[in-house]
Amino acid sequence: MNEINDKRNAVVLLSGGLDSYTTAAVAKQDGFAIYAISFDYGQRHSFELKAAKKIAQSLGVKQHLQQVVNLRAIGGSALTDDIAVPEANTPSISEIPITYVPARNTIFLSLALSWAEVLGAESIFIGANAVDYSGYPDCRPEFIESFEKMANLATRIGVEGGRIKISAPLIDLSKAEIITKGIALGLDYSLTHSCYDPDQLGRACGKCDSCYLRRKGFEEAGVTDPTEYASPR
Amino acid sequence: MNEINDKRNAVVLLSGGLDSYTTAAVAKQDGFAIYAISFDYGQRHSFELKAAKKIAQSLGVKQHLQQVVNLRAIGGSALTDDIAVPEANTPSISEIPITYVPARNTIFLSLALSWAEVLGAESIFIGANAVDYSGYPDCRPEFIESFEKMANLATRIGVEGGRIKISAPLIDLSKAEIITKGIALGLDYSLTHSCYDPDQLGRACGKCDSCYLRRKGFEEAGVTDPTEYASPR
Repeated sequence: MNEINDKRNAVVLLSGGLDSYTTAAVAKQDGFAIYAISFDYGQRHSFELKAAKKIAQSLGVKQHLQQVVNLRAIGGSALTDDIAVPEANTPSISEIPITYVPARNTIFLSLALSWAEVLGAESIFIGANAVDYSGYPDCRPEFIESFEKMANLATRIGVEGGRIKISAPLIDLSKAEIITKGIALGLDYSLTHSCYDPDQLGRACGKCDSCYLRRKGFEEAGVTDPTEYASPR
Repeated sequence: MNEINDKRNAVVLLSGGLDSYTTAAVAKQDGFAIYAISFDYGQRHSFELKAAKKIAQSLGVKQHLQQVVNLRAIGGSALTDDIAVPEANTPSISEIPITYVPARNTIFLSLALSWAEVLGAESIFIGANAVDYSGYPDCRPEFIESFEKMANLATRIGVEGGRIKISAPLIDLSKAEIITKGIALGLDYSLTHSCYDPDQLGRACGKCDSCYLRRKGFEEAGVTDPTEYASPR
């Protein structure tokens, strides 16, 4: 993965999970210099932020900014409230899972937009995926398109005749396809953390939606899953 | 100002300035129960946050949430960087003033959106004004409309058939018209803080864009300006 032209900057949302790692690698492959942004938003655990740091190092990003946003003060999700994380495939009253965090991608993209404007970045990359997370309103292509339109009206870039692009290169891919793409790019998925509810050692629970999708993805891709799960299936 | 129906909730962006105070009062007049949100974003001083607290109390808001967002880590503005605040009417290289904070309204509205979703609020009120701040891209009506569209795609509310409205009741008003409206609503503007660059006692500089517009607004409205300015004109 050589940088073809390191003068084009991109801000990449880096959570520490498999999708954002793959997204950052795609941006790098596309020739962008990467400015990674991660969020301590009051999530249940900090293992994914540790993973984000390792990923940022391994990809050789230009800068890694960690922002603190207290979504716990707002609540409304099993990821930021004292609500139990359900096991995978638990029937839900709503079509939207309880792990949905209200307006999270909007908030993260907004902060990325501010940084992109200061950096003169051409693009913001997000690992949103509409296939496996079809229940999250802010992972749909129509949301991404709408955010891009708004972003160009909101900022100096748009007013002065430039254009900022919101890139979601994984939006239409299955988890297996994402993993296949990442392996082809030489990625080491043992760096990533996906579980919503790890034990105190940081081991994945093996039971939540996120673990379920990750396991299934590796299986379907025919790739050995490097994750240590606390519980067998 | 009686509350006609306190079951309709609105989130109101409250900066501590004259515009957001008037906006909150309009929302209250419209029958909304007010959930005020203020931001410690790394601005040059905290006098406006103190003003926001006093305003929230005087309006009898249901809750006042203060969020911390470190825009200083991102920079790019005289309000969050070590760049001098220019005096009013200083010629600028760009049409956009150096006091513009990249994507600030987008970030603030996004956090308000998250809270609005959790509260089941119908509306988010913002004191954006396109007349006196015509240089700020995120104070234009087309930005507000675009954010509203995006917000309804981003959230549970929109997906489940509801609708969240972004209300900017001052967008077309001059500062004098805003003051006239506020005085009619019985507001006490001595509670507010507008200056970009106050002295250590919190006294308005009397020289920056914000002081200039405030002074001019009171004059044109024919209302005595309760502000103590550190320097005469």
